[in-house]
Amino acid sequence: MQAIDQACVNTLRFLAADQVEKAKSGHPGFPLGTAPLMYTIWDRYMSYNPANPDWFNRDRFILSPGHGSALMYAMLHVAGYDLPIEELKNFRQWGSKTAGHPERGLTPGVDVSTGPLGHGFAMGVGFAMAEAMLAARYNKPDFPVVDHYTFGITSDGDQMEGVSGEAASLAGTLGLGKLIYLYDDNKITIEGSTDIAFSEDVEMRFKAYGWQVLRVADSEDIEAMAAAIQEAKADTTHPSLIIVRTHIGYGSPKQDMASCHGEPLGAEALAAAKEKAGWSQEMFYVPEEVKEHFNAKLPACAEAEANWNHIMESYAMCYPELAQELADRISGKVEIDLSELEAIFKDNAKTATRAASGDVIQKLAAMVPALVGGSADLGPSNKTVIKAEKYFSKLDRTGRNIHFGVREHAMGTILNGITLHGGFIPFGGTFLVFADFLRPTIRLAALMGIQSVFVLTHDSIAVGEDGPTHQPIETTMGLRIIPNVSVIRPADALETAAAWKMAVEQKTKPTCLLLSRQNLPTLHEYAAAVHEGAVKGAYVLSPAENAKVILIGTGSEVELCLKAQKALAEEGIAASVVSMPSWDLFEAQSEEYKASVLPAGVTKFAVEAGVPYGWAKYVGDEKNVLGITTFGASAPGGVVLDKYGFNVENLVAKVKAVL
Amino acid sequence: MQAIDQACVNTLRFLAADQVEKAKSGHPGFPLGTAPLMYTIWDRYMSYNPANPDWFNRDRFILSPGHGSALMYAMLHVAGYDLPIEELKNFRQWGSKTAGHPERGLTPGVDVSTGPLGHGFAMGVGFAMAEAMLAARYNKPDFPVVDHYTFGITSDGDQMEGVSGEAASLAGTLGLGKLIYLYDDNKITIEGSTDIAFSEDVEMRFKAYGWQVLRVADSEDIEAMAAAIQEAKADTTHPSLIIVRTHIGYGSPKQDMASCHGEPLGAEALAAAKEKAGWSQEMFYVPEEVKEHFNAKLPACAEAEANWNHIMESYAMCYPELAQELADRISGKVEIDLSELEAIFKDNAKTATRAASGDVIQKLAAMVPALVGGSADLGPSNKTVIKAEKYFSKLDRTGRNIHFGVREHAMGTILNGITLHGGFIPFGGTFLVFADFLRPTIRLAALMGIQSVFVLTHDSIAVGEDGPTHQPIETTMGLRIIPNVSVIRPADALETAAAWKMAVEQKTKPTCLLLSRQNLPTLHEYAAAVHEGAVKGAYVLSPAENAKVILIGTGSEVELCLKAQKALAEEGIAASVVSMPSWDLFEAQSEEYKASVLPAGVTKFAVEAGVPYGWAKYVGDEKNVLGITTFGASAPGGVVLDKYGFNVENLVAKVKAVL
Repeated sequence: MQAIDQACVNTLRFLAADQVEKAKSGHPGFPLGTAPLMYTIWDRYMSYNPANPDWFNRDRFILSPGHGSALMYAMLHVAGYDLPIEELKNFRQWGSKTAGHPERGLTPGVDVSTGPLGHGFAMGVGFAMAEAMLAARYNKPDFPVVDHYTFGITSDGDQMEGVSGEAASLAGTLGLGKLIYLYDDNKITIEGSTDIAFSEDVEMRFKAYGWQVLRVADSEDIEAMAAAIQEAKADTTHPSLIIVRTHIGYGSPKQDMASCHGEPLGAEALAAAKEKAGWSQEMFYVPEEVKEHFNAKLPACAEAEANWNHIMESYAMCYPELAQELADRISGKVEIDLSELEAIFKDNAKTATRAASGDVIQKLAAMVPALVGGSADLGPSNKTVIKAEKYFSKLDRTGRNIHFGVREHAMGTILNGITLHGGFIPFGGTFLVFADFLRPTIRLAALMGIQSVFVLTHDSIAVGEDGPTHQPIETTMGLRIIPNVSVIRPADALETAAAWKMAVEQKTKPTCLLLSRQNLPTLHEYAAAVHEGAVKGAYVLSPAENAKVILIGTGSEVELCLKAQKALAEEGIAASVVSMPSWDLFEAQSEEYKASVLPAGVTKFAVEAGVPYGWAKYVGDEKNVLGITTFGASAPGGVVLDKYGFNVENLVAKVKAVL
Repeated sequence: MQAIDQACVNTLRFLAADQVEKAKSGHPGFPLGTAPLMYTIWDRYMSYNPANPDWFNRDRFILSPGHGSALMYAMLHVAGYDLPIEELKNFRQWGSKTAGHPERGLTPGVDVSTGPLGHGFAMGVGFAMAEAMLAARYNKPDFPVVDHYTFGITSDGDQMEGVSGEAASLAGTLGLGKLIYLYDDNKITIEGSTDIAFSEDVEMRFKAYGWQVLRVADSEDIEAMAAAIQEAKADTTHPSLIIVRTHIGYGSPKQDMASCHGEPLGAEALAAAKEKAGWSQEMFYVPEEVKEHFNAKLPACAEAEANWNHIMESYAMCYPELAQELADRISGKVEIDLSELEAIFKDNAKTATRAASGDVIQKLAAMVPALVGGSADLGPSNKTVIKAEKYFSKLDRTGRNIHFGVREHAMGTILNGITLHGGFIPFGGTFLVFADFLRPTIRLAALMGIQSVFVLTHDSIAVGEDGPTHQPIETTMGLRIIPNVSVIRPADALETAAAWKMAVEQKTKPTCLLLSRQNLPTLHEYAAAVHEGAVKGAYVLSPAENAKVILIGTGSEVELCLKAQKALAEEGIAASVVSMPSWDLFEAQSEEYKASVLPAGVTKFAVEAGVPYGWAKYVGDEKNVLGITTFGASAPGGVVLDKYGFNVENLVAKVKAVL
């Protein structure tokens, strides 16, 4: 290693170790081991501009083992991002920009929140897909307006997680040549040597997926690493995994020991490591030549973005429409005229909300170029196919449909990656009950405050014959309780239109659309109320004068509420019906509005084909809920609904019992 | 194929297709394609006894693509299980034993519920581990008391799911030689050819995992398949995957088409398929020679079990203690004297409940030979290591500790497999926030009504520095709402003892233990109340006369409630404190008991470092909850708790506000 490279690597190593030491918390082993990987990527290849961390055509970087955050912060600091040394000294403290795991939005230069292993790696696949899709649509001869790499570091922990295997298999199928990961092959996990649980041949596995796999025998050989990255870039039709033999806790007395993974080295071991490296014992030491080395890059960084801006200006002259479209996509601005979507259903009698969703997708795809999506191999059932568009594939990057394969978890992470890249509103479909498979990705989208759209069909026991493994019971409520997730379960085609409008317009949270398998009547009779109310989460669908009870229905159970309203009226009991497609949209309304929909002093009764837990908030007592507290059963959907008491007779009896 | 084999295969094929056709629902393509695989396993190799589907030493069989259930039912019917033809005619109907996907407990001979892809395959790894562990402990020269194979069929859909990759990697590491899967390589998925999303080389991937991979070029070549299975059995140190080139919808006009996957063939195509096979058009036709073929096996089936019973009798004479222990393990009976566990903590001042759990595990491991477990590479943090025992490995099958690797999802499925095998109470640890990664496995355990124990530590924002990706907010409530799951969040070491007692004794549901990272005082002062009350889910921990308010705390927040109780008393406000480690245990108590703990007419206020949603049920209004509605933050745990309002001052103020 040349002297300046060694100085830079040591700076990263010990800035990271010092952060952990001062915080008395964190992971020093990873930064000590992988600092050369980080440095080689950022020094030799990364195209970035610290003055504008959001520059659209920058290379993306993903630190998938997020517990190595201290190394990320060290890198961003020396590279010139707005992350002063004081922030590094405040590592893992309240209010700092240097959280325990990298958090997108908190720290300039952090492209993606990582921590849950496997997710960063899989989001990188989404980044690379996004780049390829945009390049295919917008690049023109002499105008490479979207043209960047996605680099990352991945670890054995990452690669034990199933989600990374799912994503790697898809990345291989899609031939994502601009995706390049360096693999931290340190052979150590928290419980000991990787051999104890992970004796597989990672190289062979990735070759099986269709990746180019390269090896670097020594993490201290920066030139070999740089050459490998060059080779990775040269292969434009395969993603690349560069396996680098590293040593956790490199240079410290705890090198190659699991004990340096998750706790500070301790003053003594840290001092010994610095001494061995011939490094200053000064905490948070950055030598002048290292500062100069990175400062010297800044003009080129600025120029890279300036060049791109220049290209974009010329592009706007040559291709004004495309340029405007791309600019709009980058800005993310979308506004949907709900009436246009509702018009699709002018003549509809009955339709499943999944089918209505499919119709809306066709219309939206024409209106919103950013919309892309697919399904975890359930496209025909989820109705997620954009019929006028092709599939995104290795040979054709122009497609807007994505075959995710039977990989719900990777689908969720890839949606998150595509969203984070920018320029897209991606959606992914599966059965609602399998939302559990991608739940960690919904949580991470919510935590990052990003827009991924989850199309979750077959939303109750009405699924029918497929039986309890396919019938969600607790899933709807399970999604509602995740902070910053919008959950919308429309009652009909018109509410589905409103749900999609919200899904497309809500930029800072993921939206889950919960859709029926079975046909439902379209609420034309109440069209005005639906138009006004559905986007507010709950509204009076069918009022009754001097109502003794308010029936609150969601999704397919609204139809049942309307029928029960009539039956109750025949018995002289005035009931009004509130449709409540979304708790979170409703909670965002004014107190006045909420009180107008659910006034105090009137008995309320909720109907939902799912667990009653949580409904007490709106109806006071779980006795005032027609729900389900056990798993479902295999039989035709109508039979199952009936056997579980979702019929007018039972609902009326239950309502009368609480009045 | 010989005539009788062909007749048997055709019987299976068309019994399955007829079920789907009559039900007007189901999946005919898989059974038509894989009937020869099913037949070869069952006819040539499976050791089973239809007269006793639960015979302990039977070979286990897993139909991982559960949508092929009709084939399973056809096989069980002809093999002589108590599944009359009327049940097949009632496929997917209310009350039948022939549900849409195989359900353990519902259908004799179904070892495992499948449907969520990947899970069956991964549970098979658990079966094979269970067999190996029992064999190592109980088998003696001439007494192979536990000695069987785990056979299964797996599919491309299965193998796209990450959980199967996780489990396969571990199975390879562990060298589970008695695990043999036939892979239905039909090259078709719901959305089309597998190439669209799954172009990987499955053979190479499994070799990378350390499996023996064999190929059979033609699914109609039963002798080749039988030879491959023989070869698989001969390799005792590697699990085997036999890749069989199959054809979905074999012999029907829809052969090799995605359209025959998930809907009936239709009368015409079914008739054409039968005609092409030279088969009777009669629905549910079973030729006499096929009946005779399988009936002729029954004496040998009965003899296999009789032989084993004979061996067991001799074994009981030679090794009475081991025999008794094994019998107890098979019967599953366990009773724990809570006092024995509580005695561990006689002198404890403060301890994290995860550490208390670790102490209990040491004690329980000595008392309950069935207890085995491990962690998803977080053993040192989860405190899940049984210190007196070794690790289960390829070279040593006697270990009771399991290195699952960073594979939460596979860990959950493997726990389920081990439980289903019988003879075990397995536990698996990870951080509570990563319960999302294995949530589908908790659901499936609940649905099957089995005992897997999930040790979920670091149960709140008190995790501290690791930050929001590692801080559960909604996770506790998210687990509570799953039907048939016991969720216990103990307040201290003594409650942890009670929680483990319940986890070990509750045989028909999974238990989730939610444990603190941070130290908590041991409630010696209230030991009698804890002893009586904790197992009931909620109890009056610290009463107050004429209490104006009842503070309900769970887990680490009970300490805060006790402090607030004192502070309120100083202000003249009498408050009693209820500790509520488990909603589900509490809900199982009598109405009288429940009313004694939470009497009507007294204001109630709940304190839990998680979402308040759902608490209205006990406290009337979410205003009466000190909870968290956003994600957490990175800082020392005590700081985070304080910033989020979990301090005496804020709690007292909030309580006073609602009084």
